[in-house]
Amino acid sequence: MLLYDSPVAPNPRRVRIFLAEKGIDIPREMIDLGELAQKSEEFTALNPFQRTPALRLENGKVLTESTAICRYLESLYPAPNLFGNDPLERAEIEMWDRRIELGLFTFVASVFRHTHPKMAAMEVPQIAEWADANRPRVLKALDLLNDALKDHRFVAGPRFTIADITALCAVDFMARARLAIPEHLSHVLRWHAEVSARPGAVA
Amino acid sequence: MLLYDSPVAPNPRRVRIFLAEKGIDIPREMIDLGELAQKSEEFTALNPFQRTPALRLENGKVLTESTAICRYLESLYPAPNLFGNDPLERAEIEMWDRRIELGLFTFVASVFRHTHPKMAAMEVPQIAEWADANRPRVLKALDLLNDALKDHRFVAGPRFTIADITALCAVDFMARARLAIPEHLSHVLRWHAEVSARPGAVA
Repeated sequence: MLLYDSPVAPNPRRVRIFLAEKGIDIPREMIDLGELAQKSEEFTALNPFQRTPALRLENGKVLTESTAICRYLESLYPAPNLFGNDPLERAEIEMWDRRIELGLFTFVASVFRHTHPKMAAMEVPQIAEWADANRPRVLKALDLLNDALKDHRFVAGPRFTIADITALCAVDFMARARLAIPEHLSHVLRWHAEVSARPGAVA
Repeated sequence: MLLYDSPVAPNPRRVRIFLAEKGIDIPREMIDLGELAQKSEEFTALNPFQRTPALRLENGKVLTESTAICRYLESLYPAPNLFGNDPLERAEIEMWDRRIELGLFTFVASVFRHTHPKMAAMEVPQIAEWADANRPRVLKALDLLNDALKDHRFVAGPRFTIADITALCAVDFMARARLAIPEHLSHVLRWHAEVSARPGAVA
């Protein structure tokens, strides 16, 4: 297998942390988003949607979408389990993973993409008003996450799962959008400190 | 089980088509988004994220997020299979489901939410420039879908899957955003006619 990876960007990081948590090492090829390498003819032939990460399998097929890649790797490397052990746990983890992705990550990305000078060539046009509309949504999503973390140690329940990886990448991405966790969200801060201390978090 | 459903909205429709394809009947309670019933105290207690669909289980737990609900129902009602029979097929179906959701559905929703008068109370502020930025993205996504449908009969391969349900809901949602499939995208048109003729499409 070969992983097409990119530094800095949060979606490739989701796969890197997943690999680190699993203790898996896969050869990598770097696709530099800053140089728009994901739009090259060569990479577009691998992924017409021009996004990283992508995983080339032994049979030549290319998988894209971080969640699909991670779930496939979980089938090859089942331990430690990060997607759930039975249908109900799997559903609750997927529910939380999507709540974080669609209800936090997307809002952070919108602020970043519509304000950061480095995104001017990729996000055309950058719309300051749309960034402004998303800032309070980030805070509302963090409020909801804080409420959930009152009741359970990790995002989807009592143990670390893929939903924590998605949430860590979303929350760390906030810095690039010039956003910070409000100090009164003590459960988010406690959770963030704990998951950031895991060895995989440096990936 | 009890399904919290809403008419018209595309995400609840994903679950309804899934149930129809499976031949499952689940009691429903209607949550009227037009009256902002999803923001009521009662419904917020069930889903703090204030979205439909939601599925209340026998044990009182509430699952949300259409994909998580459908995957859970697939574990209870395995036939016909809609999520894939082995890890690789599951990964390819999830990849396509996400490409359609994040790379087509989201763009259509952005045009709808930022232009339709009925959304003025829910999408604040409506930003015409953001709708304008998403219209060409919808067309680009349809181009990519058309390319894929040259090679396979359905969105994720040779058979009907959850990715076709997501794509059908996204494409049908286009009408509410005043968008139409361009006439030269013959593979999308052929696919759309075929999946629209399935009995479940009326759900």
